[in-house]
Amino acid sequence: MTAAERQAQPNGNGRVIGERRRRTATKTGLVLSCDLIADTALRLIGEHGGEALSVRRLGAALGASPTAIYRYYATMDDLLLELADRLIGIGIEGFEPGTDWQADLIELARRGRRAYLDHPRLALLVASRTTGRANEARVIELILSILHRAGFDGDEAVRLYRTYGDLMLAFAATDSGFLALPEELREADRARWAANHANVDPETHPRMAALTPQLIANADIESFESAIELFVAALAARSPRGAG
Amino acid sequence: MTAAERQAQPNGNGRVIGERRRRTATKTGLVLSCDLIADTALRLIGEHGGEALSVRRLGAALGASPTAIYRYYATMDDLLLELADRLIGIGIEGFEPGTDWQADLIELARRGRRAYLDHPRLALLVASRTTGRANEARVIELILSILHRAGFDGDEAVRLYRTYGDLMLAFAATDSGFLALPEELREADRARWAANHANVDPETHPRMAALTPQLIANADIESFESAIELFVAALAARSPRGAG
Repeated sequence: MTAAERQAQPNGNGRVIGERRRRTATKTGLVLSCDLIADTALRLIGEHGGEALSVRRLGAALGASPTAIYRYYATMDDLLLELADRLIGIGIEGFEPGTDWQADLIELARRGRRAYLDHPRLALLVASRTTGRANEARVIELILSILHRAGFDGDEAVRLYRTYGDLMLAFAATDSGFLALPEELREADRARWAANHANVDPETHPRMAALTPQLIANADIESFESAIELFVAALAARSPRGAG
Repeated sequence: MTAAERQAQPNGNGRVIGERRRRTATKTGLVLSCDLIADTALRLIGEHGGEALSVRRLGAALGASPTAIYRYYATMDDLLLELADRLIGIGIEGFEPGTDWQADLIELARRGRRAYLDHPRLALLVASRTTGRANEARVIELILSILHRAGFDGDEAVRLYRTYGDLMLAFAATDSGFLALPEELREADRARWAANHANVDPETHPRMAALTPQLIANADIESFESAIELFVAALAARSPRGAG
């Protein structure tokens, strides 16, 4: 296979690269590109949710034909994974490890979750996916290097990186799920929360009854913050290098 | 308000109770009931996902009119929350606290997650919701009572119960999200996982390169198990009653 032939093949991410996509202009005069398609898909998902990611709707928004889009992304799932990888990139952009591995793990998780919460509808679509792309590898390397500084290696390092990543993603997805609800359902859920915690029978629910003021006062706690703090504390307790 | 009038009002869960729903038979000869509607909705969601939960489709499946369904559930969201509460009930059914609070917390979380994974499409719809119903109160009381045995009280008990519950729900939802994917996408994700972890440049990704065998070998770890184990270990370390 010549270099030119290889260029025209789908790459490792399923994308097609090479001559065919040059100078493809849309009806609106924009020149199609991977970035333009991804930006438009991101906007459609943000406005209408995952159902909006069809090649028909995307083509209409771009003023381009489905055929033209498939020159850049082999499938709609391929495009979705590109968006997923961009989201990972947003989460790690600007992050610089410091000297305290515990603080680094907490800060990186916060930034990742924030990126997902800023794009809740996309987050719901991709939180369980593997992108296989550059930013995913970057963040895995970053987490493994922080765990290495904490003294974790081998199977344990891998287990902890997986647990840490999945913990962040899991909270990001469920918190996004709540944000993606219509406002009236969120309000109704908050009201039910307060009512369910306040109106219990002390005979059948003695602990809830005893803690009613605390249950109401803590309605808005960020359980993600608590979970990541406990996770890092558990790691510090078993770190071969100690908590420092 | 008389007792009869009160009975005809929507109850605290938005349901309408009373005379109006007696002897409502469907076209298929079944007698409509809250249970029959909920069972049918659960089946529709399991087969077709959340989009199936419209009053039109539900009516067609039941051989009943939308009006008849609204005699039992004030809104489709009201029905969805009933299903959410049933899922909580499945998770705690048969659970009996033992003498070891750490083992109890782990076992209860496993059972809850299992219930959600057995109904992945419903899990995705309800993991971020507050049902305000009986089983939700039962599980809150259960968790608070286990934490009480561990010596946690006041604001800390509430913070830990919220964190524990949200941790279980978050993993249940993202693991359900993966299970709800079409099989070919799951297979593709697994393949990408292996490829992305094996084919890295040691110059730019030294930790990934150093751990490639472990990354491949640990592809199928249950990060939920690791997360709940670390959570309970962190609690044991700060329990006023010690780890016992």
